[in-house]
Amino acid sequence: MTSTDRDAPPAPLVELRSDTFTLPTARMLAEMTRAPLGDDVYGEDPTARELEELAAELLGMEDACFMPSGTMGNLAALLAHCPRGTKVLAGAESDIYVYEAGGASYCGGVIVEPVANRADGTMALADIEAAFPEDPDDPQFALPALLCVENPQNRCGGRVLPLEYLAEVRALARARGVAVHLDGARIFNAALALGVPVSVIAGYADSVQFCLSKGLSAPVGSMVAGSAEFVRSVRRIRKMLGGGMRQAGVLAAAGLVALREMTARLGDDHARAGRLAAGLAALPGAVVEPVETNMVFFRVDAPGLSQARFIERAWEEGVRLAELGRGRIRAVTHAGVDDADVDRALAVFHSLLVPQTAAA
Amino acid sequence: MTSTDRDAPPAPLVELRSDTFTLPTARMLAEMTRAPLGDDVYGEDPTARELEELAAELLGMEDACFMPSGTMGNLAALLAHCPRGTKVLAGAESDIYVYEAGGASYCGGVIVEPVANRADGTMALADIEAAFPEDPDDPQFALPALLCVENPQNRCGGRVLPLEYLAEVRALARARGVAVHLDGARIFNAALALGVPVSVIAGYADSVQFCLSKGLSAPVGSMVAGSAEFVRSVRRIRKMLGGGMRQAGVLAAAGLVALREMTARLGDDHARAGRLAAGLAALPGAVVEPVETNMVFFRVDAPGLSQARFIERAWEEGVRLAELGRGRIRAVTHAGVDDADVDRALAVFHSLLVPQTAAA
Amino acid sequence: MTSTDRDAPPAPLVELRSDTFTLPTARMLAEMTRAPLGDDVYGEDPTARELEELAAELLGMEDACFMPSGTMGNLAALLAHCPRGTKVLAGAESDIYVYEAGGASYCGGVIVEPVANRADGTMALADIEAAFPEDPDDPQFALPALLCVENPQNRCGGRVLPLEYLAEVRALARARGVAVHLDGARIFNAALALGVPVSVIAGYADSVQFCLSKGLSAPVGSMVAGSAEFVRSVRRIRKMLGGGMRQAGVLAAAGLVALREMTARLGDDHARAGRLAAGLAALPGAVVEPVETNMVFFRVDAPGLSQARFIERAWEEGVRLAELGRGRIRAVTHAGVDDADVDRALAVFHSLLVPQTAAA
Amino acid sequence: MTSTDRDAPPAPLVELRSDTFTLPTARMLAEMTRAPLGDDVYGEDPTARELEELAAELLGMEDACFMPSGTMGNLAALLAHCPRGTKVLAGAESDIYVYEAGGASYCGGVIVEPVANRADGTMALADIEAAFPEDPDDPQFALPALLCVENPQNRCGGRVLPLEYLAEVRALARARGVAVHLDGARIFNAALALGVPVSVIAGYADSVQFCLSKGLSAPVGSMVAGSAEFVRSVRRIRKMLGGGMRQAGVLAAAGLVALREMTARLGDDHARAGRLAAGLAALPGAVVEPVETNMVFFRVDAPGLSQARFIERAWEEGVRLAELGRGRIRAVTHAGVDDADVDRALAVFHSLLVPQTAAA
Repeated sequence: MTSTDRDAPPAPLVELRSDTFTLPTARMLAEMTRAPLGDDVYGEDPTARELEELAAELLGMEDACFMPSGTMGNLAALLAHCPRGTKVLAGAESDIYVYEAGGASYCGGVIVEPVANRADGTMALADIEAAFPEDPDDPQFALPALLCVENPQNRCGGRVLPLEYLAEVRALARARGVAVHLDGARIFNAALALGVPVSVIAGYADSVQFCLSKGLSAPVGSMVAGSAEFVRSVRRIRKMLGGGMRQAGVLAAAGLVALREMTARLGDDHARAGRLAAGLAALPGAVVEPVETNMVFFRVDAPGLSQARFIERAWEEGVRLAELGRGRIRAVTHAGVDDADVDRALAVFHSLLVPQTAAA
Repeated sequence: MTSTDRDAPPAPLVELRSDTFTLPTARMLAEMTRAPLGDDVYGEDPTARELEELAAELLGMEDACFMPSGTMGNLAALLAHCPRGTKVLAGAESDIYVYEAGGASYCGGVIVEPVANRADGTMALADIEAAFPEDPDDPQFALPALLCVENPQNRCGGRVLPLEYLAEVRALARARGVAVHLDGARIFNAALALGVPVSVIAGYADSVQFCLSKGLSAPVGSMVAGSAEFVRSVRRIRKMLGGGMRQAGVLAAAGLVALREMTARLGDDHARAGRLAAGLAALPGAVVEPVETNMVFFRVDAPGLSQARFIERAWEEGVRLAELGRGRIRAVTHAGVDDADVDRALAVFHSLLVPQTAAA
Repeated sequence: MTSTDRDAPPAPLVELRSDTFTLPTARMLAEMTRAPLGDDVYGEDPTARELEELAAELLGMEDACFMPSGTMGNLAALLAHCPRGTKVLAGAESDIYVYEAGGASYCGGVIVEPVANRADGTMALADIEAAFPEDPDDPQFALPALLCVENPQNRCGGRVLPLEYLAEVRALARARGVAVHLDGARIFNAALALGVPVSVIAGYADSVQFCLSKGLSAPVGSMVAGSAEFVRSVRRIRKMLGGGMRQAGVLAAAGLVALREMTARLGDDHARAGRLAAGLAALPGAVVEPVETNMVFFRVDAPGLSQARFIERAWEEGVRLAELGRGRIRAVTHAGVDDADVDRALAVFHSLLVPQTAAA
Repeated sequence: MTSTDRDAPPAPLVELRSDTFTLPTARMLAEMTRAPLGDDVYGEDPTARELEELAAELLGMEDACFMPSGTMGNLAALLAHCPRGTKVLAGAESDIYVYEAGGASYCGGVIVEPVANRADGTMALADIEAAFPEDPDDPQFALPALLCVENPQNRCGGRVLPLEYLAEVRALARARGVAVHLDGARIFNAALALGVPVSVIAGYADSVQFCLSKGLSAPVGSMVAGSAEFVRSVRRIRKMLGGGMRQAGVLAAAGLVALREMTARLGDDHARAGRLAAGLAALPGAVVEPVETNMVFFRVDAPGLSQARFIERAWEEGVRLAELGRGRIRAVTHAGVDDADVDRALAVFHSLLVPQTAAA
């Protein structure tokens, strides 16, 4: 199931809940023991710095900063962009709004205002426009300072925002005088789907956050990139939040392997997600959403089989799925899921849906 | 136009933008010069205290606190109810969300999460339920601590939430372990429409804010009421925010007149709003929403006459209307609007809509 | 005791706790009933605007904003000057630190760092310098954004900071790139003591707060003044905090009288404070600090007579004093204290100290 | 210089700036590649959990939580203890006040009020008492909610607070109804100096933070311990701040080695610090403070040799020292400093001080 055999489960588990379950590769572990280290709080860890420079270069940004998590990456970016009392506009289905909105309000007195996401992950430009008050001098209304996009858009099925859309969003933001932050937690998946380097996607944003720890398999860490001044501000906020780590190079070493060796294999994940979706769609009682990256979202519409029961039964059969709320189920492929795992998952889904539907 | 003749406009203006434009009555002004005063920051202003006790008694609450504005009243109530990092659930069309959300996030690290308002002002109970995370121990989700209702619901046409609905909301809140705050800025209008004392409405909430300065005509001030412990907390927050005022009795004296003399006349405002709505509805090109209190919401659907132009033309003719955004216009009746003003407004609307529509 | 006879106490009280106990004058009350009014939240109250323009002119600033309290005036000024996470340097004995520090931290994530006040109210320049981190890029240290001075310095005996000192403070701030905020709650007392117009004192600061409600006798209100851009920011923050008031003109009318008629009489208060101090100093067991404005600070050093007991006994005799903590007592003269009140207070102090000391 | 030879400097550097420069041991690196891992954000990383249970057990607390840094550990503890707007009392020389105060104000609206530290690291109980307002109901004053002690007290020379003192502090806190948080970043050094297990020191506090990354040599991480309910709250705050890490076990594995193998050798560091101090004290122009743990604080009082120049010259000779401000220099021993390093440092100090002083 994974590239290391440290975690030998009694049964052959198929972990589809999230790509956050990826384990570090053998090469990552080896590099973690070899990397030159220093105290990164003093700015003296050469491996952390090497990772930051590589990330900035890949994204085409001036600088980048290593973070213990994507949550802190987005939080620090929001705080760096947004003065107290301003608004962040983010998709109602974005991770920033759904899971992390608390942080920016809690720590920074920033209001995260949800803008409806359409099924394809985009927000209608008109809905974004409507979040700007007609009279910016009217003190009754908080003023937007930042517009967030997520690409791919996790809770919209891992759908990929097209470059044309990103260009429109950027133009709107420029016209309104606000910055654009890209939550690119899985930006390498988006780049693969769009057939462009990540720098092309990042080019539509003022700042980007992406994770080393999801499809790229590093154990811990995210990067935030942007202008040199922005990153200086992010670095200060990171220290305040407690994200400054001492010999951060032990983690950065794995991040370097993630960026150098793990992006090329994401195509396998997309292919497997496609195969999983096709197999599911062929089963009675499964309603499958379009798949563009490594995520399969579906509903179970089988009489007598609730979503919760479906997930519970799959779990008992060794296939772990995520419940997204409101009837949706998520299955994510990643480096810990091979072709046999996909077969096994489909066999379990078949066993749950076919007799069940027949009986109804 | 008003009960005092200090403000003698050159033309007979009809001020329909808001009932916040009400001027203090002669009786209020007289009382303001007579009231016994003290330093209310030391708790020694007898008139402020008298007002607080009267407000608490009317609402059937243990105590109440005088505030310089409804904004501060709601803000202090939210801060008193909600620990840092928790969520307030409020209508997407509520004043707390639309106009004041910044304050609670800014000052208190509280997230105000919008729940859709239906046309009648209510939020579907299922939508409220959906804002509670399934697993309260999952640290990814901020936890709700407060549920806000607004009655009447200003931006939903001044619609009145029925008592049965308030009972359901309270039951849901009790089941979920969160408090209910009532933004009753115009609670006396709601009470009139429902035919009950304000204490009956307040009985469904843990705390209430209402304004002395809207239909009740006091120049400045709002009250926040609740349990003695809650009000103690509100009072501490008021001091921190800078809402503690020295000889507050000069304002409280007007507030006492507002509560004693001005609630009985709200029926006139409701009747005039009804007459204004009926007159408007009879005109071509005016689409009028149902009226339950002192507010008339309508749209102009006349070829060649945009909403903005309609408001501008009415202004030129001496009738002031409010633009609510997204094509809606608001006209509010109050103590500064008499029967002749309603006639005059209708005449202006007729002059704008009838020829315009005929020409189209 | 006051210029109105509304508050007729059974005994001839001498209120020396604070000048915040001043009651509005008859002229103020008359103007409050006559002033043209509007909705100041819409920027349409002509009296509030008139007061703001007068205050700006007196201080030599571009604009000013009316506030419900000095607490909110200082709070809004600090928030307008200081981005989140920066430091305000303020005297350890300043009202901003001692009484109001909570607000800026609570609402704005600002750290108020105390700098020691010397007996004369000044802070040593070296101590101010020491609060700036040696390396401004070191993210371990919060960066100062604002330097606050208080003139006169209440808790240092109402001592007046000389203009030369203010010039040095401003030069230090300029060199360090931070702004200077003057808490001039009693700036007219300082101006009188220094023999200059208030604009000369204000000229050393980027922003000023002063109170209409202390020696100037208005019932409610303070002003914040500064550049047009700064005041725009303050006005937005005022709305958010809930300090926007509807017919604010009823209070501003009193404020106009305060500025036009009440500053000239402050000399009486200073003279009476001087006479009170001299009388006290002649008594055994009273240790009196130097007096420069309308405040007398002293200690009681009489065997068998604690400070608390002295204050309690004076209260029983109709003389109200403030306990400042750590053994200091404050007596403040104001428009509600005439020559006879000073005589009466001295008689009471004599009765308490002379026999007491004799007995010891 | 270190237990791994990855970082081979051209000259034999003696790193005395801080014990945060310790590098992970070979055993730590080996364990990091072997530890069973899971997604700790889902609570499924067995190694992180094992570390948390061991830390709780060692401290005699109900539970503990792994943190990416001591800064976040203290920040989360302060936020968990302190409602918005309350005060934390901490030593004016404590790391929490000097380096981290920004965080609690920034994120939580908490005021960190400094209380003077005496030379031995303690705060006078009377000074702590003085930070409590006389009237807790007076809304002018923020109320303390937490009392912080640091043991050993870094900026007071690494001095150790005696158990009797901790008992007095706890008693004061109990009497005042506030909690006690112990910043025990180097608690194992304190325990060694006091000759007691860390649980005895922790027993005087409601919560404790300690670092795995200083003397204990782990590359990254700190622990926060306390009651089960407190740790639940800390865990939620950690997620919000972005301190939840995915396969946190890679770091926790090193932390387990730190706790199991590295505490026993701290005696070597104390002995070397003692020897360094004694050697320094024998040199002309060095004024050395008492040494109780692994820190040597001293001043250079040699004509013509400023502190800054001394540090610069030592750096050129391969000995790195920390400048603490106001003329103090810090030298810290740790696992990366052996007996030869101490000799070398003393030789350099001799070369700098002896001719210099002789020449004067």
